[in-house]
Amino acid sequence: MKYIGIDLGGTNIVSAVVQKQQDNYKILSKKSCKTNVPRDTREICNDMIRISVEALKECNSSLDEVKYIGVGIPGSVDPEEGKVNFATNLFAENWYIVDMLKEILNDSEYLKTLGTDKTYSDIEILIENDANAAAYGEFLAGAAKDATNSVMITLGTGIGGGIIINKKIYSARNYAAGELGHIVIVKDGIKCNCGRNGCWEKYASATGLINITCEEMKRNKNSKMWEYSESLDKVNGMTSFECAKAGDESALKVVEEYIDYLACGAASVINIFQPDCLVVGGGISNQGEYLLEPLRKKLAKETYSKNLKYTTDIIKAQLGNDAGLLGAALLAI
Amino acid sequence: MKYIGIDLGGTNIVSAVVQKQQDNYKILSKKSCKTNVPRDTREICNDMIRISVEALKECNSSLDEVKYIGVGIPGSVDPEEGKVNFATNLFAENWYIVDMLKEILNDSEYLKTLGTDKTYSDIEILIENDANAAAYGEFLAGAAKDATNSVMITLGTGIGGGIIINKKIYSARNYAAGELGHIVIVKDGIKCNCGRNGCWEKYASATGLINITCEEMKRNKNSKMWEYSESLDKVNGMTSFECAKAGDESALKVVEEYIDYLACGAASVINIFQPDCLVVGGGISNQGEYLLEPLRKKLAKETYSKNLKYTTDIIKAQLGNDAGLLGAALLAI
Repeated sequence: MKYIGIDLGGTNIVSAVVQKQQDNYKILSKKSCKTNVPRDTREICNDMIRISVEALKECNSSLDEVKYIGVGIPGSVDPEEGKVNFATNLFAENWYIVDMLKEILNDSEYLKTLGTDKTYSDIEILIENDANAAAYGEFLAGAAKDATNSVMITLGTGIGGGIIINKKIYSARNYAAGELGHIVIVKDGIKCNCGRNGCWEKYASATGLINITCEEMKRNKNSKMWEYSESLDKVNGMTSFECAKAGDESALKVVEEYIDYLACGAASVINIFQPDCLVVGGGISNQGEYLLEPLRKKLAKETYSKNLKYTTDIIKAQLGNDAGLLGAALLAI
Repeated sequence: MKYIGIDLGGTNIVSAVVQKQQDNYKILSKKSCKTNVPRDTREICNDMIRISVEALKECNSSLDEVKYIGVGIPGSVDPEEGKVNFATNLFAENWYIVDMLKEILNDSEYLKTLGTDKTYSDIEILIENDANAAAYGEFLAGAAKDATNSVMITLGTGIGGGIIINKKIYSARNYAAGELGHIVIVKDGIKCNCGRNGCWEKYASATGLINITCEEMKRNKNSKMWEYSESLDKVNGMTSFECAKAGDESALKVVEEYIDYLACGAASVINIFQPDCLVVGGGISNQGEYLLEPLRKKLAKETYSKNLKYTTDIIKAQLGNDAGLLGAALLAI
């Protein structure tokens, strides 16, 4: 049996064929296409099935071997009703995506264009928030393997949160739990488009880091960061880290400030969950120990640990973008 | 069968006899004594058993009818090892309280002084953090009855947190999860004795409210709050609320500011857990709807709710101090 995992992103759609091999889960093949939003949701669903069939072909398989298709979606989803409540980056709201995908799997005409002669009404389709899917993927096959309770944060445009409690995704009755990016760490701070002010992700996401970097560059025209990035609109999540590694004082200051914000929210998350591990993913996590070592030091000071048996492991995500694909593929497990 | 629940507080020790009656759990009798800390932990344990025997006598019962004694403790506990890791208000650290209580239940000489001729090596003793016990009590027999996931906050000297996930206390492998008072809402804010700065409880506990009240009174010598409380050291958690109800402008300002801080942390808690209900307990919760109605309004603006099926119910705790006694008594369930 093979599993299909789809990552429905705002920019790309990726589909992966997943199979159990010994004690682990492996991606056998992957195909992707542009999401091209805004466009008709039926067209998006057609593409999701199309690239899945292509990925299956690539590993000499077909939908005949598939029982489950799982989809990770960047937004609020209702897995029970098979509905996307809202997903800003997909320009979608109240979208019954599971029904639509099932329709396509029963649409013999469309399937014929993909070289498939049968229909597939028996394939079960599951959806999940993409951050939850990624956390689940890291738990099943990555950094959080063997954990009982783990929390994953993804440092990207925002901060995504995924919570595994008792070896299951915790999403509560609204399937909306784990919005870790939207805990306030600076009351009355920077305005967030969620309606709050001072959300953690305004400071500790990649976007937050870029803001801190630009502020420092404006203050300090001699910073090496100007050589690295030339202009403020070329600043990215690497600018400060790379210049800090080269010894630039002002870049070091930026990195220190950034990790301070990151630790502020992370310490709260640990005080709340005392998870076995905190998995750090997203682009910024590629800084590895250069990020994690000072983060651990700050967290040791800020979290409850006196006389406790265990400390939360602070670890880098292992699977990158594959985490979401694996987690989505294996939602049925 | 009867259950014994003990609330081991920094000021008082209370023991209650609990019994199932129809679909609910009831307290049949209660006895208490002073904790008188700092003093020998063995003496404290002796008193815990003594008042439990007295409470049993009061409802014409004895230890013969008891299989479980549960103890709620204000601090970090390890239920597996039966140990209090540390409890500042009890002046205790690494205290193997379960072993000590078991010793007493096997100490025929001491039990004789209580009028008991047998020993009780079969009675099981369970311990839990007191905020968790209270959350469990409200879940089993109070405001959160029938919830699947609920969070309780207790607004007292600090902010206690208790988390129920999937109908069980969530405390994770360190038995230390749920330290909701120690999420930072004001980065680099007021110093907290947990080692962090700007913890939620520094602003939104009863102590936080008293601070805000005193600050306003210092600024405004015409405030009605001076009539109500005479001097700053007589200010308590009621001062601002009572004067606000009487229409005092400056007291209204204090209440508004306080609820703003309360909502800030509560919204983060809801974004993280999306619980069925948030139970608000502790002295300040006695303000009832005068507190909860404006709190709900602020939370509606600050929490994720777009296109979601459910909203977290914001409700007052029902059981007062009995919540911790019931929760402790019923830990075995």
